[in-house]
This record gives sequence, C-alpha cells and structure tokens, in this order.
Amino acid sequence: MHFQIEHTASTSPARSGLLHLAHGTVHTPAFMPVGTRATVKAMTTDEVAGLGYEMILANTFHLYLRPGDEAVRQLGGLHRFMNWNGPILTDSGGYQVFSLSKLRKMSEEGVEFASPIDGSRHLITPEKATAIQQNLGSDILMAFDECTPYPCAEADARKSMELTLRWLERSKAAWTNRDEQNLFGIVQGSVYAHLRAESARRTVELDLPGYAIGGLSVGETKEELYPALEVALAELPVGKPRYAMGVGTPEDFLECVERGVDLFDCVMPTRVARNGRAYVRGGTRNIRNSRYTLDPRPLDETCVCEACRHYSRAYLRHLYQCGEILSARLMTLHNLHFFKDCMTQLRQAIQTDSLPALRARWAAEKAAFEQAEVEEMA
Amino acid sequence: MHFQIEHTASTSPARSGLLHLAHGTVHTPAFMPVGTRATVKAMTTDEVAGLGYEMILANTFHLYLRPGDEAVRQLGGLHRFMNWNGPILTDSGGYQVFSLSKLRKMSEEGVEFASPIDGSRHLITPEKATAIQQNLGSDILMAFDECTPYPCAEADARKSMELTLRWLERSKAAWTNRDEQNLFGIVQGSVYAHLRAESARRTVELDLPGYAIGGLSVGETKEELYPALEVALAELPVGKPRYAMGVGTPEDFLECVERGVDLFDCVMPTRVARNGRAYVRGGTRNIRNSRYTLDPRPLDETCVCEACRHYSRAYLRHLYQCGEILSARLMTLHNLHFFKDCMTQLRQAIQTDSLPALRARWAAEKAAFEQAEVEEMA
Repeated sequence: MHFQIEHTASTSPARSGLLHLAHGTVHTPAFMPVGTRATVKAMTTDEVAGLGYEMILANTFHLYLRPGDEAVRQLGGLHRFMNWNGPILTDSGGYQVFSLSKLRKMSEEGVEFASPIDGSRHLITPEKATAIQQNLGSDILMAFDECTPYPCAEADARKSMELTLRWLERSKAAWTNRDEQNLFGIVQGSVYAHLRAESARRTVELDLPGYAIGGLSVGETKEELYPALEVALAELPVGKPRYAMGVGTPEDFLECVERGVDLFDCVMPTRVARNGRAYVRGGTRNIRNSRYTLDPRPLDETCVCEACRHYSRAYLRHLYQCGEILSARLMTLHNLHFFKDCMTQLRQAIQTDSLPALRARWAAEKAAFEQAEVEEMA
Repeated sequence: MHFQIEHTASTSPARSGLLHLAHGTVHTPAFMPVGTRATVKAMTTDEVAGLGYEMILANTFHLYLRPGDEAVRQLGGLHRFMNWNGPILTDSGGYQVFSLSKLRKMSEEGVEFASPIDGSRHLITPEKATAIQQNLGSDILMAFDECTPYPCAEADARKSMELTLRWLERSKAAWTNRDEQNLFGIVQGSVYAHLRAESARRTVELDLPGYAIGGLSVGETKEELYPALEVALAELPVGKPRYAMGVGTPEDFLECVERGVDLFDCVMPTRVARNGRAYVRGGTRNIRNSRYTLDPRPLDETCVCEACRHYSRAYLRHLYQCGEILSARLMTLHNLHFFKDCMTQLRQAIQTDSLPALRARWAAEKAAFEQAEVEEMA
C-alpha cells in the first residue's frame, strides 16, 4: 500500500490523495458503499463501478456466518466471489458482534456469541477476526475492536479502550499477509477527548498502514463528535490514510474532510433509499409523500443519474407504493450517485483550495431547498 | 398496425414475421415479458431492451387500481411513465378481475368487485376496460373477456363464451383510437374443441387487427390444451397475428409455434427467478439446493448473460439465502435471457425451415441435462 497526498488545503488540514492498493487506486477523500453480505444492496458491481466508486466495504461478521470465510476462500476470495475487481475494505466484525449477536459473553480472549441466523455458538478473537479477513482477501482489514455504546461512562470508556489496544497488538501479530493486505488500527475512547488522544497515540505506536476512528455515529451529538474526532486526528501521522467509520451524511463529510479524514463508509444512502428517501441538493425527499402522486419531475432536477434522467417522482412513488424491487434499485442508484458527486465536489475543492466556497455553496443549496419546500407546501 | 409474414415452415403452420406497431416493430414469434405494475419485476427497461425484447405486457387491472389510468394518462401515457419506448400490449383485466379481486358480482353489464388494495368497489365493463387501455396508450389492447376456470362444465363454458362474444362487440364499439391502438379479440371455449372453433369463428367475424387464445394455462393438461388450441387456430385468418395468452414454457413455445402462434406472455421466467429457479439448457436449476454451496460454475455453462458471465452458483445461492435483491435481479436477468434465446432459436429455425432439427436438439439437451443431474446426485 502506498498513500500519496496530492493537495492540502490552505485553510484546514483537508487533503486529497491517491491510495494505491493491491486491487487498484482510490482517489481520496472517498466514500465506500457498504456491501454487507458481499453485495451492495440492490446493485450490481458493474453499476457501483459505473458510478465512479473505486473501493467498497464488506462485513466480516456477516460473511463469516454466511457463506463462511472458508467457503469464500475456496471460491477464489471475496473479489472473485462478488465480482468486484477494485479494492475492498472489510470491517473486523467488532461493531456487528456487539449490535447484532445474541447471548454475548465478553472476555479478555474475545467475544462468544450466538449466531442471529441459527443460534450456533461462535468465539471471535482478534486472531480469528484477522484470519477471517485474510481468508476473504480484502485489501484493507480492520483490527478487532470493542465499539463502546453511547452514552458510556468515562471509566467504562477507558476500560474498553485499553481492551481494544491489547486486542490490536494481537491482531497485528496475527496479520501475516502483509504484502497484499493492510491492517488498520481503530481509535476508540467514546466522547472523551483525552481518551481519544491517548487511544490515537498508543494506536500509532504500533506503526500500522492506516488508522480509523471508530465508535462514531452511535448516537452522540455533533458537539461531542467533532472535538473527539479532532483530538484523535491531531495524533495521527499526516502521511497515512484516516478513515472515519460509519460516517455519514454529506454535511458530516465536509466537517470530517476539513479535519483531515480520507475515507468514509455508511449504510445511509443505500438503507434510506430502500425506505423511499432520496438525497437531493440541499436536503432529502421522501418519495412516499402523496404530493408526488402526479409529479412529472425527476427526484432532483439537477441530477444526471439514470433514475433522474428516465423516471418521474410519480413513477418512483408508484414503484415504492407497490413494493417493487425497481424502487429500491432506482432510489439506491440515485443516492449512491449523489454521495459520489459530493465526494467529487469535495476532492475538487481541495485540489483547487476552495473548500470555503464549497461550504458556502452547500449552505446556499440547503437554504434554497428549504425555501422551495416551504413554497410547495403552502 | 401491419403484420408481415416473412417465412412459413414447410412442415407445419409455423411462421416468422414482423409486427409493425406505433412504437416499433416486433420480430415474431415473440415472447413478451410481463410488466404487471408498469415494471418488469426487478429489471430496468434498458435491461429488458438490452436482452433484445421489443414488446412487453402490462396489466390493466393493476394499473387501473394503482396509480390509476387517469394518472398515467396525465403523466404522458404508459410508455413515458415506465420509460419503455417499444410497443406495449395491455391485457383487459378480465383474468385478474376473476383471479385477484374479492366480492365479485357478475352481470351482463360487467363485473363489480372490491379492490384487493383498499376494498373500494369498482365496476369494470367492456367499455371501461377499453377506455382504461386507451388512457394507458398501449399499442395492443385486449377485449374484456370472461376467463373460464378449469375444470368448467360444457354448459358453463358455452354461456361464458357467449358473454365474452357480446362483450367483444361492446369493446369494439368503445375502441376509438384505431390509428395508434389495436384491439385484439380473445377466443374462449375452455377445453371443448367445438366451442373453441365456434368462438374463433364468431370472433373473427368482428374483423379485428389480431386474435388471442385465452383461458389457457389455467390447469388443463397438455392433451387438452393442444387440440383446443389447434381447432381455434384453424379458424383464424393466416394474415393476422395470433397470441397465446399466459403461455408458457420453452416446450410450450415450440408446440404453439408449430401450430402457428406468433405471440406469448408469461410471468413464469420472472416469478420463478425470484424463487431461485433458473431455466437452463434442458431443464431448470433450483439455486436453493445445498449442493451449489461451493459450486464455482455459472447457472448455465453455455449461457452468455451477465449473471452467467460474472457469478457462480455458489454466489447466487448465497444471495438467495440472504434474501438479497441482487438475487432476484440476476436470476430474472438470466431467465429472461434464456426465454429470449429460445425465441431467437425458434425464429431462426422457421426462417431456415429447420424446426424438426430444433425439436431434436432441444430433446437431446433435455436428455443430456437429466443425465448430468443423475450423475451429480449419485
């Protein structure tokens, strides 16, 4: 892996770069669509690539349970299995073990849990999570961490952070395929700035190819999120990629990019699409709304995605009302196009050192959208 | 509308032709994918066209209830609404009124029923069914008929046939947009050859642009189906298109084409795809089967569709097991590719006067498939 910074903003630590990985190069800052079970829901990989995405994320926890990492390995690895030729990042499964599994039993060794699919018992350890990701063959593997819930008392946050650091050492020791796969460590510490700083410092001591900020987007306020993020980022080496896990929305991207983040992932654009919500310039639009019943306009009149070029709000509402698969497809396509476009705008603004102008433009778009909504509702 | 017969087989009444309609030309024999609610389930119209399909079918009953034919008309008609630029055939809603609605009340006037969506009461008459289809703007509209169930006593079949004939006269009288839209009459008569013949004769007396055989694929045996079909087809004018409604499978296509049928529609390829069943050379394959868990081969090793070029049985089974939308997409894509390929083979066999050779080849493929299955299961 080689991370090449191209431009740095004059007004902030924002930077654009190229992340060279075994399966290709990623232009940063970049958003990774989430392909939980080796599929970005409702999309083919050709469509995802066609939107301009270069790297996607897949979930260790889900793929370990089904079809099993050993099966994926036998079938030629995750890239071949899911027909995605570009880089893949796999999360460690830590977050899912805590949010999705039942009958969890935590220990120093790892986490024992019951499968939500068939109730079978499993033990995931840092070594196991690393071995699974090596079987999957992802370009970036994440260290197995404990993701603290929100809110979390300071004493608990410290205890959890210490455990995550001990687990990180074990993950690193288990990481053997170092030429093709890159282990990222995860900074924890909840909303406590001094814990975030300490976590970052001690994670960096392990000298890994890249670093992630975990435990974000778990319910904390923006006022808690950004200071915690800033102190953590300040401790990370400038020359290595930084990944804000589970972040977020276009507004979050701008805030994080200005603080020096390079990589993002979030289920939001794909998940809300399936519930009928589209991201449009300045806001979101819920296609279930009855005011779209006879609306011949596209989701977003400035958008050039396939959904907006060919289909009306009225048709998309009809598809949603009927529970048609094409609804999920077109809404997902649109949202992923929108998110990619946001990233392209951010990257270009960094390269032309015009992030403040972009911030102003997005603010104006938000005001215009809200004004138009008020007028339409009147 | 202009129907141009290109070739006729020397061994049977099979013919290939060109059906010129307001929205384009259809190469016959042709299979029409079913787009019930103005969407071929799980597919974009670009994909359907990309597979080589030239005409699709949409459902009057469903679109009348949701979003309403008046809404579709206001939005520019069905072609624009669903982004399909080629010809569209709409059924009359007759079949669905009888199979899907509740609290039906039949009369000479028409059928009163309760909507399965919200329980609201509606009366569909021949005039209403014609008006709805004129609002939708389909290239071919079907006369409102009563589709007899199976089994059906002869006296009931005659009574129903007579009603369908009276309704046909009313449909024809209500059909006003004759330059752009073409009304097809529907031959009924259940499995009774003399009723089918009489129904066909009296339908032809109304001198319509084309004729359909209805009431097929409702549970009758092949031994009942083909004789009834033959006597009806014998009464239809050679120069006009013939449509076997709701038919069927590749084997049915061959039987019907050899008897002189030009058009087909069926939900089978799309519906079974969503249940994990793929049509392959010589048979079908149920992707849910656990023997595909580690199978790296494509669904059909001779197929060149996107699903077969890029994805293994193991991956497709994984998607199905996880309930992923991509499963429905790829399986549907494959089955529609397969059905289109069957039609292409049939058309080419007519044009080279080699239908018997095609029949022999399909029989050999079936034997080979069954032999391979036996060997794999052993």
